[in-house]
Amino acid sequence: MSKDHIALERPAQFSHLPLVIGVDLGGTQIRTAVMRGPHLLSRIGLLTAEQPGPDKVISRMIQAVHQAVNEAGVSLKQIMGIGIGAPGPLNRKTGVLFCPPNLPGWQDTPLRDIFYEHFRCPVHVENDANVAALGEYMFGAGQGSKDVAYITVSTGIGGGIIANGQLLTGTIGTAAELGHMTIDWHGPRCPCGNIGCLESLASGTAIAQRANEQIALDKSGSAALVTFALGKQPHKIGTGTQYNSQGLSTTPIHVDAMMVAQAAASGIPLAREIIGSAAEALGVGLVNIIHIFNPEVLILGGGVTQIGEPLLGPALRIVEERALRASRESVRIVLADLGSDAGLIGAGSLVYCNKEV
Amino acid sequence: MSKDHIALERPAQFSHLPLVIGVDLGGTQIRTAVMRGPHLLSRIGLLTAEQPGPDKVISRMIQAVHQAVNEAGVSLKQIMGIGIGAPGPLNRKTGVLFCPPNLPGWQDTPLRDIFYEHFRCPVHVENDANVAALGEYMFGAGQGSKDVAYITVSTGIGGGIIANGQLLTGTIGTAAELGHMTIDWHGPRCPCGNIGCLESLASGTAIAQRANEQIALDKSGSAALVTFALGKQPHKIGTGTQYNSQGLSTTPIHVDAMMVAQAAASGIPLAREIIGSAAEALGVGLVNIIHIFNPEVLILGGGVTQIGEPLLGPALRIVEERALRASRESVRIVLADLGSDAGLIGAGSLVYCNKEV
Repeated sequence: MSKDHIALERPAQFSHLPLVIGVDLGGTQIRTAVMRGPHLLSRIGLLTAEQPGPDKVISRMIQAVHQAVNEAGVSLKQIMGIGIGAPGPLNRKTGVLFCPPNLPGWQDTPLRDIFYEHFRCPVHVENDANVAALGEYMFGAGQGSKDVAYITVSTGIGGGIIANGQLLTGTIGTAAELGHMTIDWHGPRCPCGNIGCLESLASGTAIAQRANEQIALDKSGSAALVTFALGKQPHKIGTGTQYNSQGLSTTPIHVDAMMVAQAAASGIPLAREIIGSAAEALGVGLVNIIHIFNPEVLILGGGVTQIGEPLLGPALRIVEERALRASRESVRIVLADLGSDAGLIGAGSLVYCNKEV
Repeated sequence: MSKDHIALERPAQFSHLPLVIGVDLGGTQIRTAVMRGPHLLSRIGLLTAEQPGPDKVISRMIQAVHQAVNEAGVSLKQIMGIGIGAPGPLNRKTGVLFCPPNLPGWQDTPLRDIFYEHFRCPVHVENDANVAALGEYMFGAGQGSKDVAYITVSTGIGGGIIANGQLLTGTIGTAAELGHMTIDWHGPRCPCGNIGCLESLASGTAIAQRANEQIALDKSGSAALVTFALGKQPHKIGTGTQYNSQGLSTTPIHVDAMMVAQAAASGIPLAREIIGSAAEALGVGLVNIIHIFNPEVLILGGGVTQIGEPLLGPALRIVEERALRASRESVRIVLADLGSDAGLIGAGSLVYCNKEV
């Protein structure tokens, strides 16, 4: 059973580590692996069931675990425990999911107990951003430091903090909601209910939404972006454009953050402006993280960071310009090391963190 | 010598605690006391020397410690250690002050070693906001919880965080700079170099500055505020008003935050607007703290909180409206318990935190 708080002890040698299972429960995919430290002996990915709700999805998760065990050529008896990363909010002590926005119908699902009933081994549940932070801390870009901040910029923005070798959980486990700090007091309302959240200004969703709004309003400069997008995705854009009574296009959203980034790289002004604005918001968020946590390592993860220089360059310049000198000079800002495996490896790491190894 | 990080153990009974000395080094006052737990056996306040620079001030600090020991009727041999709260940034491990903006000339002053040379007992140095947080955590409004956030709203805004019973220090001790998180991305530049910091929008200095700017510009509504201030401080305002070539008043700043608050309480619209704006900024800051730390107790300290309802009411309503439900429902927001003694008691607490008691 999970301890109240995780005191993290990094194992020195991976080869002597026991086998564990990591489960990464996402909105579209269930991924699971048998692993020894950061080394995956097997890896299974299944689509999250099309019919939402916990019953079918949990069946699939259990099925995926059995497949991973078989593929690794080991037996369940050799497994020290199972770690699960799941969308929050959740109670990490009881392993109960409250009502994750990305998992409709999962209200009050006792995920840990269901897994324990089936597998009869230690099961630990933690929110997905914390789990990814843990993976990077133990086996990725955060190795060698006790004060690590991790931010993931993807469809949303999440975070995980390790302070003096302890995962920052807060009193019920909902700490480190870095995407939902207000950086623009007079900004847009975030779906979370707050105003001007970092997530609503710098996430992949925010980038795509801003571009599609400009296209729908036929704002000046949007034509070049549409033309660019048409060239990239002719099957998705162009035909079937619909107009409302004001003559504005009501064509469904078609441009995603990566396409906006590509258009920006091609020099299309509107796209450059949108990426530049997200980059500035991200930079402001990084300054806040540096001022609030004084981390030794600040890790940037998530798919949107793959935009690279056009996003990260301006963001890092803002840190250089605005962050307090002592804190700025003591932080290394680095890209995540484990890529899309951070969540999987971090989930397995939960078992190591909760046991003496 | 200070440990790397402080694991906080609350003593159950104060009467068995050893005697310690707390020193609170402020920009205008040095305060020191001999104490047993939160109970002060003596208390000495001296003005910080008029000539700035460490030599004279440190002499005064040492003098104040001796006075406090004499007044308490004890001997230095009975003292377990000395804890010093000082303006940051500083290195808590070495007890060296870098270059505190409030203490000009103190660059790289080895405060801890100087005290140790003189008193030959354990000496611990920590930044003043962390020290106040520690005081509230151990002996004030944070008692009974392991996850406590403390924000002090005064001339500036500072913070201290205890997460799972550990003081959040960050890698070099500059964490919890809550006043220097950006909440208004497009806001004013803060003297720290960052943009739209909470401190530049909700501190006492910010309130006074905004009022005095409006007065200097003779903005509509400022006349009523001037009249109110004249009634309160006729010796300070009224005579000697100077005008620049544009006919604008260049009279030196006269209105402070408390006077603006009093004017707001009297219904003067400009003052109400200024206090309302600071209250909204404070509320946004509290939401961020709740989302980032998920504290069980969030303590509001500092002189500006004495404005009371006109400041705190709107701030708490913003928390109610905007903070994520799970985190909001798990936090108690309370006023500081130790008042202006938090820094003094917290400084003494440093000794308990760094020793087995």
